[in-house]
Amino acid sequence: MRITAIYRVASAAEDIDAKAHSLAVEQSVEMPLDAIDDERVLAEIAGRVESIEPDGPGVWHVRVALAAETFGTEPGQFMNMLFGNSSLHDFVTLEDAELPAAMVAHFGGPRSGMAGLRRRAGAKARAMTCTALKPQGLPPEALARLAARFAMGGVDFIKDDHGLADQDYSPFAARVTACAAAVRQASSKTGRPTRYMPNISGNLDQLRAQLGIARDEGLDAVVIAPMVVGLTAFHTVAREHPDIAFVAHPAMGGAARIAPPLLLGRLFRLFGADATIFPNHGGRFGYSPDTCAAIADAARGTWHGIAPCLPVPAGGMTPARLPDLLAFYGADAMILMGGGLLSARERLTSETAAFVERVAELGTGERSI
Amino acid sequence: MRITAIYRVASAAEDIDAKAHSLAVEQSVEMPLDAIDDERVLAEIAGRVESIEPDGPGVWHVRVALAAETFGTEPGQFMNMLFGNSSLHDFVTLEDAELPAAMVAHFGGPRSGMAGLRRRAGAKARAMTCTALKPQGLPPEALARLAARFAMGGVDFIKDDHGLADQDYSPFAARVTACAAAVRQASSKTGRPTRYMPNISGNLDQLRAQLGIARDEGLDAVVIAPMVVGLTAFHTVAREHPDIAFVAHPAMGGAARIAPPLLLGRLFRLFGADATIFPNHGGRFGYSPDTCAAIADAARGTWHGIAPCLPVPAGGMTPARLPDLLAFYGADAMILMGGGLLSARERLTSETAAFVERVAELGTGERSI
Repeated sequence: MRITAIYRVASAAEDIDAKAHSLAVEQSVEMPLDAIDDERVLAEIAGRVESIEPDGPGVWHVRVALAAETFGTEPGQFMNMLFGNSSLHDFVTLEDAELPAAMVAHFGGPRSGMAGLRRRAGAKARAMTCTALKPQGLPPEALARLAARFAMGGVDFIKDDHGLADQDYSPFAARVTACAAAVRQASSKTGRPTRYMPNISGNLDQLRAQLGIARDEGLDAVVIAPMVVGLTAFHTVAREHPDIAFVAHPAMGGAARIAPPLLLGRLFRLFGADATIFPNHGGRFGYSPDTCAAIADAARGTWHGIAPCLPVPAGGMTPARLPDLLAFYGADAMILMGGGLLSARERLTSETAAFVERVAELGTGERSI
Repeated sequence: MRITAIYRVASAAEDIDAKAHSLAVEQSVEMPLDAIDDERVLAEIAGRVESIEPDGPGVWHVRVALAAETFGTEPGQFMNMLFGNSSLHDFVTLEDAELPAAMVAHFGGPRSGMAGLRRRAGAKARAMTCTALKPQGLPPEALARLAARFAMGGVDFIKDDHGLADQDYSPFAARVTACAAAVRQASSKTGRPTRYMPNISGNLDQLRAQLGIARDEGLDAVVIAPMVVGLTAFHTVAREHPDIAFVAHPAMGGAARIAPPLLLGRLFRLFGADATIFPNHGGRFGYSPDTCAAIADAARGTWHGIAPCLPVPAGGMTPARLPDLLAFYGADAMILMGGGLLSARERLTSETAAFVERVAELGTGERSI
């Protein structure tokens, strides 16, 4: 069983054969092939260059077949064999990976996925809405007041800022208890099933404890940054809590070493992300429309039968961007606006309500991408 | 208490002030400052640009003061606040970080460090030697035979290839038991305290279980790839096992998004690496001599009183490179040669012995860098 890794390699034409061969060796046996005696290792374990195609001047797409056996069964080792040492080369980026169906089934992908998030929001066909509790540095009570005001505006999901962890000024347990209560109370007034999603972080023990606290508050969705906690820890807790929806945050996802559609779309989904937050084009970050469309495709497209993962464009979105956003992503998306609503200050609840209404209006059609 | 993050930013001169300000906001409160009411948050939590210095045409060094409070107490959140969202910008790299002594003391750094590895090797002043078990794909018995032959050559440390995990063809427990026994037996013949270092991987539960197996075999040093298992998991097990030496492997360390001296030297050391493996200049990887010297300096230089971490240059080293290597790094280093010895095939033990002897001869002087 083979995995095909697709690398983008910058190289002069006369060196590309040697570079491609080196990549195949580096990501498999990591020693000179002529020093290997074992026939099985040479035939089944050593990486093989499948093809080298030009992709513009001095740039090549290299397909390398790697033995699935070496990838084992957990995400860390999977990434290690896909890109571990080669990530240290500045002329190589990891573009994509083609995986056997059995491996995709093993990792399992989203458990709640797009459909599970729709169920939570009571949103049959429309796009969903999300906002963020900020800034960093507020005590739990202040964050809870903010959460209540957002919830009164009827937004579907209220997430912790990804910088909220277990700091002294806002310990996880106190924050989650306060915010969950505030949102429950507001929700009972609006009649809308607004979900508060705490950001979980720390080592596996801490992640498990935080999930326990979230459960005790009746919460069924959380935010997690897979590259901050580690892909392995992320996958472990996602498997252990199939009834909790995991919304992945891209922090520490790097800009260019691993193609964003692969990392934020395909791999986060593979390891269990039910939704994936990413920087939309035209906001604070430099992703292009093509990159964003490719992330959305990788997240929600058909892939060996695993559930679709909901795209969540974000990163400096404002009410003025909504028509574009909804035209671009269609209804199978969640629109995340944090600072764009917080800037409304005393009008926060009414701006939130307007955001929710506008998305409901716009986000019911077919997606354009 | 503030942390100073130093970013390298590509920007036109007319945009650099705005970009620097955005970085300070992104890595702290992540929302428009004029939408923040709380005075404490504005004064103590929001990031502040300390200086902007040109560093060549269109490139700038930007120093940003960030609140230590937001960094919390574990490595994931530490990295999140240092570089989380900004890692998604392709015009920003993280160059360095200046930390308060109390934070360095909290994370604790190496427990064994350079001195502890010297004690294990019985190497008072000379440089140390290390080799690697490869290739991927061999069963435990074949790896154990290889380990025995290396140990008969008298090398100080024999590490698992970083690709050896817990694969079906070489399960961790079977491999470690077989290799540890082989090295013990060889060691009793040579009279040298050769150490076998298994590569540990997986989630925190698996790492703990693997450390238990290593302990049961009497081993006191392991290899771990912090960016594969996650920095948080790495730090957790390093703290839990102060009597085990942790040799950090750079896999998944990326090439350029975080400056290698910071990541592989300073941060791996901060979180508990007793030694750090990195690609030496002139081998399979493209690091420059300056980068390598800076990694070694960051690993073993004086830093808020924590123990020095041993530099381990590697990545395609051959016997012919030894004079250069030892002149460059001096005696406070460990030289790692894997493929360069495995290529000797039937002469593996004698080539290993020659490697050991040559390093002892060359690696006793003052370091040149």
